[in-house]
Order: sequence, then C-alpha cells, then structure tokens
Amino acid sequence: MSITPDWIALDWGSSNLRAWAMKDGRAEANVQSADGAGGLIRDGFEPALAELLGVWNVTARTPIIACGMVGSRQGWVEAPYHPVPCSPLAQGTTPAPSEKFNLQIIAGLRQTTPSDVMRGEETQIAGFLALNPEWDGVICLPGTHTKWVQVSAGEVVSFQTYMSGELFALLAGQSVLRHSVTADNWDQPTFDFTVEEALSKPEKLAARLFAIRADDLLDGTSPAIGRARLSGLLIGAELAAARPYWLGTNIAIIGAEGAATPYARALQTQGAPATIADAERMTLAGLTAAYRTWRDAR
Amino acid sequence: MSITPDWIALDWGSSNLRAWAMKDGRAEANVQSADGAGGLIRDGFEPALAELLGVWNVTARTPIIACGMVGSRQGWVEAPYHPVPCSPLAQGTTPAPSEKFNLQIIAGLRQTTPSDVMRGEETQIAGFLALNPEWDGVICLPGTHTKWVQVSAGEVVSFQTYMSGELFALLAGQSVLRHSVTADNWDQPTFDFTVEEALSKPEKLAARLFAIRADDLLDGTSPAIGRARLSGLLIGAELAAARPYWLGTNIAIIGAEGAATPYARALQTQGAPATIADAERMTLAGLTAAYRTWRDAR
Repeated sequence: MSITPDWIALDWGSSNLRAWAMKDGRAEANVQSADGAGGLIRDGFEPALAELLGVWNVTARTPIIACGMVGSRQGWVEAPYHPVPCSPLAQGTTPAPSEKFNLQIIAGLRQTTPSDVMRGEETQIAGFLALNPEWDGVICLPGTHTKWVQVSAGEVVSFQTYMSGELFALLAGQSVLRHSVTADNWDQPTFDFTVEEALSKPEKLAARLFAIRADDLLDGTSPAIGRARLSGLLIGAELAAARPYWLGTNIAIIGAEGAATPYARALQTQGAPATIADAERMTLAGLTAAYRTWRDAR
Repeated sequence: MSITPDWIALDWGSSNLRAWAMKDGRAEANVQSADGAGGLIRDGFEPALAELLGVWNVTARTPIIACGMVGSRQGWVEAPYHPVPCSPLAQGTTPAPSEKFNLQIIAGLRQTTPSDVMRGEETQIAGFLALNPEWDGVICLPGTHTKWVQVSAGEVVSFQTYMSGELFALLAGQSVLRHSVTADNWDQPTFDFTVEEALSKPEKLAARLFAIRADDLLDGTSPAIGRARLSGLLIGAELAAARPYWLGTNIAIIGAEGAATPYARALQTQGAPATIADAERMTLAGLTAAYRTWRDAR
C-alpha cells in the first residue's frame, strides 16, 4: 500500500536530496537521492523530484516544503535572502514554477556587515528554536562551511561562516599532507593539544601545517596523529576567530555525530560545554514549523 | 652543429625537468620537459633524461649535477637530507645508479626541531651565497611550499616551510571561492590593506575567507578584489607566523617575478624592504658551485 502524505518535507542541498512523507504530524517514510542542487540545471529539478517522489501518492496540490540550495540563484528558483536580525523563517517561502508540484522554498538569511549568507541552516535553527523556545545563546552548525549563529529572543542576531570543513577536505585529500593524514582512527590527546596550541598562538597556524608532513618524513609520525593535528589546527584556528561568539554563553551544536563531536570536544577543552542536537531532527522540526506557518497563512 | 657540454646543470623538480648545457663556465643552451619527478616511477627517470638530452652530445662520462625531487625517496635514488645548521651543499652529492649517465644528485636539508625539510631550495641558497659571499640575513623562497631560511656565516641556521602557495591554488581553483577570485588582474590597495589586517589580527584569518564569497554574492565585489584579498590573507598570515624570521634583518627573496613580487610588496608595507634575486639564476649558480666542489674532490 503506497503512502499518501499530508505534506512532504524536503531537504535539497548541494549534493543530496532527501524527502520525508509527513502524515498526522509524523514522518512516515523517507527517501533520498544524489540529485543535489549543485549538479542540476534549472530544467533538471522537476524531473529529479518526480523521480524521488514516485514511490508515494503525490498530487499537484500536496504541499512540499523545501530548504537548501534548491532556492539559490543557481537553483530551481531563487528564494531571496532575508536580512538579519530576524526570526529564522522571517521571509516565508517562495513557490517553485511547477505545474506538477506545489513546492514552497524557504529563503536563506544574509548579513550586511560583515557580509555573510546562509541557506539551509536557518531551517535547522528554526527547528532548534521550535523545540527549545526560550533558548538564547550561540548555535554552531559544523559542515563544509561551518556557521556560528548568535540567537536571542527567537531571532538570528548575527552569524559568521568558516571554511574549516572545506579546507580540511582539500588539505587532507589533495595537498602534500594527504600522504600523512589518511587514517580511519584519530589520536585524541594530539587533537586536544593542537586545539589548545592553535588557540593560544593563532598567529602560528601557517607555520604548523607543513610540520605535519615533515614529522611524517623525518620521524614516521602516524597518520592518526597527522589527521588529529590537521583537524585540531583548523578547528583551533576557527575557535580563535569565533571566540567572541562562544565565550561565556550557552552553546548548541547542530550536526551529525562525526561533524559535531570534534567541535564539542574542542569547546570542552576550553571550559565551554556545548549541547549537541541532531541535524536531521532539527531540519525536520524546522520544515514542520515552516509548513505550519505557510498553511496557517492561507 | 650539436653542442658538446663540459657538464650539464639539471633542475629536476616535482613537475618539471630542465637542463642547461654548460661550456666554459656558461650556459650555452637549455632544454626542458614536463617529465617532473612527481610523475615518474623509478625506471622512468633514465629514459626521461635520455629523451631530454638527446639534442646534445652527452657521454656516460659527462658530469650531470642535479637538484630537486629527483633525489627524494620516491625519486631516482634517495640523496639523504643533511641536518642544519650546515652550509647549503654540506652533504655533497649522491650518484644515480645509471650506466648511461654520470648523474650526481644534491642532497636536501632537514631540521629536527621543529621538523622541516627542503630539497632544491638548498641549491638556490648556495647560488645566492656564491654570488653574495658575505651576506647574512633571511632568505624567502616563495612557491607551492614557501621557505623562510635564516642564513649566517655561509650556513643555513634554521628554516620554516609554509603551505600558502598550495593553499592559494586549492582555494582559488577548487573551493567555493573559485567563483569569486578568478581574475587576470589584481587590486593592489586591497592586497595591501588585507595583508595589514591579517598581520594585525591573525586570529581572525579563519573568519575572513568566506567573506570573499559573501561579498561577491551580496555586493558583486569584483574578482580582482577577491583575488587580492585571498592572496593578502594567506601571505599576511604567513608573515605573521614568520615574523621572528624577517623582523629587523636583511631579507632576500629568491623567486620568479610572479611569486616574488607579492611577498616583496607585503614586506615593504611592514617597513621591511627585500632584495629580489632571480630563481633561475640562483639555481644555476648553485648547481655550478656544487659542480666545482664535486670536480675538485676527485
């Protein structure tokens, strides 16, 4: 028996597409594909969605609420950024031009000084605030482009993006360091020590990267140590730059376990404990909040 | 009429192979190919060299003096690193196992604390010191892996490697910033300002990279500005870490014009003027010094 959803929650990022069939306020099923927005031309979005949702009974009237890069300038249709400070879903949704689907896309957020943008994270923040309505503090969303977000009275006040995730991927996968950091495991004391070192002398960062390779060449240092050092250097440098965000405040980390744990650990070594919230659950809660707002406004 | 060299100078790096036919103390001709050491297996070195030198009259007795990655562990034969402090050519040369060529490979240098290695740059430093025998100070050799080298009384005292060049290539070519930094030109005031900013607040580096993309998205900032900012951030961060090297001393930069000029400019803005020495000329002078030492020792 095929599922007939009340509405569909859609997380359409750069490299992945995921849908949840929502029925009576709960996710009854979910499907995903590799048709991320980054790999699609404009005419490719509707067929990709049709293929993904083919397993369910979906009509042109079924509400579909989406977040992520599907709403970027290179996406299906641009859902313009809303300026902060504002509540994370302040802008409402933009309908996709489709005869086949009733797709509503959540807008991203932008900040003028310093310049910054987010798209997708606003939905996770909305989900977190829906589940923790009185919460004030700073939310860290680790990923390819990690966001630090100051939240107060239900609004995003300011935020800052860090490229540490992308830098790690480039350095570990393609630089001369790749020979010295490829490991399945990870030396925790090295990570802790390196974070501490990067935070206390951030001006030394540039001098420390190549030492990972040199230590391997001269002393045969293990890749598990090399990997922990590279991650520790990058996360330590990020924490040094983000210190005004996280110092002396509540901290929540929204992320998958692999991404969130090193941040939580690094913050812990600085005497700044953080709560970890599951990224998927926050996305779903945020899409649900956006769906309710959209529905109630009709 | 084909050339019969007295000896051959060879610069065999990771990605290029270049030879000069030396006759009566001067380079009479040069040839090059893309057969860098990074792309060759062990059995591939001799044929690659034979192909390159085919245009000249070379016998199995013609001395060939080589520097660069040809002497690494993955090269033709390992020419082991010599520990600093020492004169740049302290180790002498290691012969390649060949019936066809009389190839002598210059050893690299290593440093124990902090761990570091160089291979190829020692020859340029030797060339610089051959041309400037009384010179003391710091030599900067910009490139994929930039070296800062403290030189005193004809010896390499200490050195430090920075990955700024490789980071620039990865970020400008493959990261999300590639959309915002691809330009033929370059905004000089932006570079100067960014270097200054990175030097005065090095802990902010991690926060400033993504702003290059955000400024482009929100304000349409030109790629010439984006490119100058990315380079200024990375060189500024390097200068912050290398400050103990360059502060209050003689500075020479050995590099091709495109690589050396931004470093010279950045140092100038800090009131630290640097002399630029041509990389190719230094390589040739260093190979010549190594040849004479080898010849005189026989």
